[in-house]
Amino acid sequence: MRALRYHGVKDLRVDQDVPEPKCGEDQIKVKPAFVGICGTDLHEYFSPTFTPSKESPHPVTGESMPVVIGHEFSGTVLEIGPKVKTTLQVGDKVAVQPTIACFDCGACKEGFINCCDSAGFVGLSGGGGGMSEAVCVGGDFVFKLPPNIDLDVGVAWHAVEAAQLQRGEDALVLGAGPIGLGVIQCLKAHGANKIIVAEVAEERQNFAKHFGATHIFDPRHDDIVGKCKELSYGRGVQVSFDCAGVAASVKTACLAVRAHGRIVNVAIWEKEVPFNPNNLVFGEKKYSAVLGYQGKDYQGVINALSEGSMQPEKMITSKIHIDRVVEDGYMPLIKEKEKHVKILVDLST
Amino acid sequence: MRALRYHGVKDLRVDQDVPEPKCGEDQIKVKPAFVGICGTDLHEYFSPTFTPSKESPHPVTGESMPVVIGHEFSGTVLEIGPKVKTTLQVGDKVAVQPTIACFDCGACKEGFINCCDSAGFVGLSGGGGGMSEAVCVGGDFVFKLPPNIDLDVGVAWHAVEAAQLQRGEDALVLGAGPIGLGVIQCLKAHGANKIIVAEVAEERQNFAKHFGATHIFDPRHDDIVGKCKELSYGRGVQVSFDCAGVAASVKTACLAVRAHGRIVNVAIWEKEVPFNPNNLVFGEKKYSAVLGYQGKDYQGVINALSEGSMQPEKMITSKIHIDRVVEDGYMPLIKEKEKHVKILVDLST
Ligand SMILES: NC(=O)c1ccc[n+]([C@@H]2O[C@H](COP(=O)([O-])OP(=O)(O)OC[C@H]3O[C@@H](n4cnc5c(N)ncnc54)[C@H](O)[C@@H]3O)[C@@H](O)[C@H]2O)c1
Ligand SMILES: NC(=O)c1ccc[n+]([C@@H]2O[C@H](COP(=O)([O-])OP(=O)(O)OC[C@H]3O[C@@H](n4cnc5c(N)ncnc54)[C@H](O)[C@@H]3O)[C@@H](O)[C@H]2O)c1
Ligand SMILES: [Zn+2]
Ligand SMILES: [Zn+2]
Ligand SMILES: [Zn+2]
Ligand SMILES: [Zn+2]
Repeated sequence: MRALRYHGVKDLRVDQDVPEPKCGEDQIKVKPAFVGICGTDLHEYFSPTFTPSKESPHPVTGESMPVVIGHEFSGTVLEIGPKVKTTLQVGDKVAVQPTIACFDCGACKEGFINCCDSAGFVGLSGGGGGMSEAVCVGGDFVFKLPPNIDLDVGVAWHAVEAAQLQRGEDALVLGAGPIGLGVIQCLKAHGANKIIVAEVAEERQNFAKHFGATHIFDPRHDDIVGKCKELSYGRGVQVSFDCAGVAASVKTACLAVRAHGRIVNVAIWEKEVPFNPNNLVFGEKKYSAVLGYQGKDYQGVINALSEGSMQPEKMITSKIHIDRVVEDGYMPLIKEKEKHVKILVDLST
Repeated sequence: MRALRYHGVKDLRVDQDVPEPKCGEDQIKVKPAFVGICGTDLHEYFSPTFTPSKESPHPVTGESMPVVIGHEFSGTVLEIGPKVKTTLQVGDKVAVQPTIACFDCGACKEGFINCCDSAGFVGLSGGGGGMSEAVCVGGDFVFKLPPNIDLDVGVAWHAVEAAQLQRGEDALVLGAGPIGLGVIQCLKAHGANKIIVAEVAEERQNFAKHFGATHIFDPRHDDIVGKCKELSYGRGVQVSFDCAGVAASVKTACLAVRAHGRIVNVAIWEKEVPFNPNNLVFGEKKYSAVLGYQGKDYQGVINALSEGSMQPEKMITSKIHIDRVVEDGYMPLIKEKEKHVKILVDLST
C-alpha cells in the first residue's frame, strides 16, 4: 500500500510498496481519511525524539525507522477483529487515539496509560500510522465520530479536565498556537467566564478571538499579570494554561493566578528554565502538567463536538495532498506559522 | 514589661520598659511560657524581610522596628476580651497561632488567611510577640493545649495535609532540618508506610531515624531517585516533600515520585533555580507549595499530640534564658546547626 514514511532526518518518502497490516483478533482496521500535522511531526522531522532508531527499536512495537507517520487521524472502519467488543460497524466514521502502551508497567496498571514507561504513538513509534491506506489499532482506541468532524483536540481537552475547571471561573491561556487555540475552545465548552489570552503573533491573536477568547493581550507590550488582576477584581484568575513553553510564560502563569489557583503546563520543554518556587509558595498555588490524553478525553471532545459547543473545523487552515506534505504542510507551518493552525492531509485523492 | 525586641540587623535587645499591651474586646491576652527559635528568626537577624522598617510600617499592625520577636509560642491565658466566644478560661495552657491577616483581601475572603495579601506574623510584623510577658491576639488564634506540649509543627502538618496523604503511601522527605523532621513525624501520624529521608548531615540523619524515618540516604553518595524506585517495586513513591530548598532537591523531588505523584514544596527560596517542567510532564505529576498553616492544622497537631501519635518534645535539644538568646540560641543554631533541632526560650526565669 501507499504510505508516507520517515526514514531519517528530513527524509520523508511516499513509499508505494509498504505491506498492508493484518487486523489482529483484538484490533480494528481503519482506512485513514484525514491526517493532521502537528508540532511534534515538525520537531521529529529535524530531530527524531520519539521515532525509534535502528539501534533501539520501540519496546512495545519492536519497530524502528522507517516508520509510517501520522498520529492525528480520522477515517472509516475496514475490519473488526473477532475478539473486539464494540458497537462499531464496518464503514463507520471514526477517530483513532494513537496511544501505544505496554499495559504492564506501574503507570499502565493504575490506568494512566498515557504515562506508560514505554509510551509511544501510532504514527511515530511504529505500529503503522495515519498517512497510509490502512492501520490496525486496539479495539478500545477507536471512537465513533459524528458526521463532518475530523480533529484532534484531545490534548487541550485533557488539560482543561486536569485543571478541574468550574463553570464561571476565569482563565489565562499563554500561547495561541494549535494547542492554545484548542484550550480556548475547550474552556468555552467547559463554561469558563473570562478567557484571557497572551500571544505575540497578530494572526494568532485573531484566531484566538475567533475561538472564544474574551480578552487578548500581547506580552511584549502588556503587563499580563496586571491585566489578569484588573479583570478579576484584583484577585488574579483561578487557572492558567502554559501553551507557550518559554521561561517568561512559566513565571507569568504562576503569578497571574490567585491564592490557591491552579497552573496547568501543557508545553513540552527543550531545556531547563529559571524558576522560583516562591511564585507558588506565596498563595499556595498548584502546578501540574499534562501529557497527551486518555480515552475519556476523546469521548469528551466528541460529545462536545456533537453538541456543537466546539467547532474545531474552523481550525483547519488548509487541506493538502500526501505527495506534497513537506512543501505544502511542513514548510508553511514552519515559515508562515502564524497564518496556520491545522493543516490536514486529505487521503481521498 | 520585659520583652526581647529586634531593633535592626544583628541588634536584639532585652528592653525592660516595653508598654504592656491592652486586651482588645475580641482578643485573648496570653502570658508566654516557652518560645521556639526558628530559621526565619535567624534569617531576619541578618537581613530583615518580614520585619517592617520605619519607612514602611506593616499595613495591618501599623508598626515598625523595634518589634517584639517570638512567633512560635505557648503560654497561659491571662485575660479574655468580652466579645470573644470561647470555652477557654483564664489559666488555661494554650498555643498561639501567630497569623496576622487583613481579613479583607481576596485570599482572606476565601478563607486562605495564611495567603493574605498583607500577611504577617505576631513576633515579626508588630502586634507583640512571644518573647515578652504578655501578648494579645485574636480569640480564634488561641488553642487549648494538652499538658506538657510546647511545640509548633503546624507548617509540617499543613504540608502533609496538603499532600492529601493516604494511609499506606510511601513518601520521600528531602532535608531533615526542623521542618523536615516535623514532616517525618506528621507522616507517621498520618499512617505513611515507607518514610524515606535524604539528608547530608549525619546528626540530622540520626534525628530522622529517631522520629520515624524508615530509610535514610545521603544525596552525596546515594542515588535518591533510584533508591525510591527500588523501595516501591520500580514505581517511585507517591509523594515527596522538599524541605531542603536547593536546586538539586527540586529535581530529585520531581523524579522520585511515580506517575500522577505529588510533590509538596515546603521550602522558602532565596532565588530562581534551574527547573525542567518536563520532569512533571512525563508522569503528569502535581507540584504544590505550602505557606505557614491555618487554624485547622493547629488543631490537627494538637489532636495528634493528645493521642500520642506525635512526640515532638524529643525535638527540643536545649532550653535557654531570654538574656542569652543570641549566644545560646542563635549561635548554636547557626554554628552547630546539625546538633540542634529546636531551641526553646524558657520565660519562667
Ligand atoms: N502535553 C502534551 O501532550 C502536548 C502535546 C502536543 C504539543 N505539546 C506542546 O504544547 C506547546 C504548544 O504547542 P503548539 O503546537 O501550539 O506550539 P506553537 O509553537 O505553535 O505555539 C506556541 C505559541 O506561543 C506563543 N508565545 C511565545 N512566547 C510567548 C509568550 N511569552 N507569551 C505568550 N505566548 C507566547 C507563540 O507566538 C506561539 O504562537 C508546545 O510546547 C508543544 O510541544 C504538548
Ligand atoms: N512553607 C513555610 O511556611 C515554611 C515555614 C518555615 C520554614 N520554611 C522553609 O523550610 C525549609 C526548611 O527549614 P529548616 O528550618 O528545616 O531548614 P534547615 O536549613 O535547618 O534544613 C534544611 C536541611 O536540608 C539539608 N539539605 C541540603 N541539601 C540537601 C539535599 N540536596 N538533599 C537533602 N537534604 C539537603 C540540610 O543539610 C539541612 O539539614 C527552609 O527553606 C525554610 O525557609 C518554610
Ligand atoms: Zn500531535
Ligand atoms: Zn506501560
Ligand atoms: Zn517559624
Ligand atoms: Zn488579607
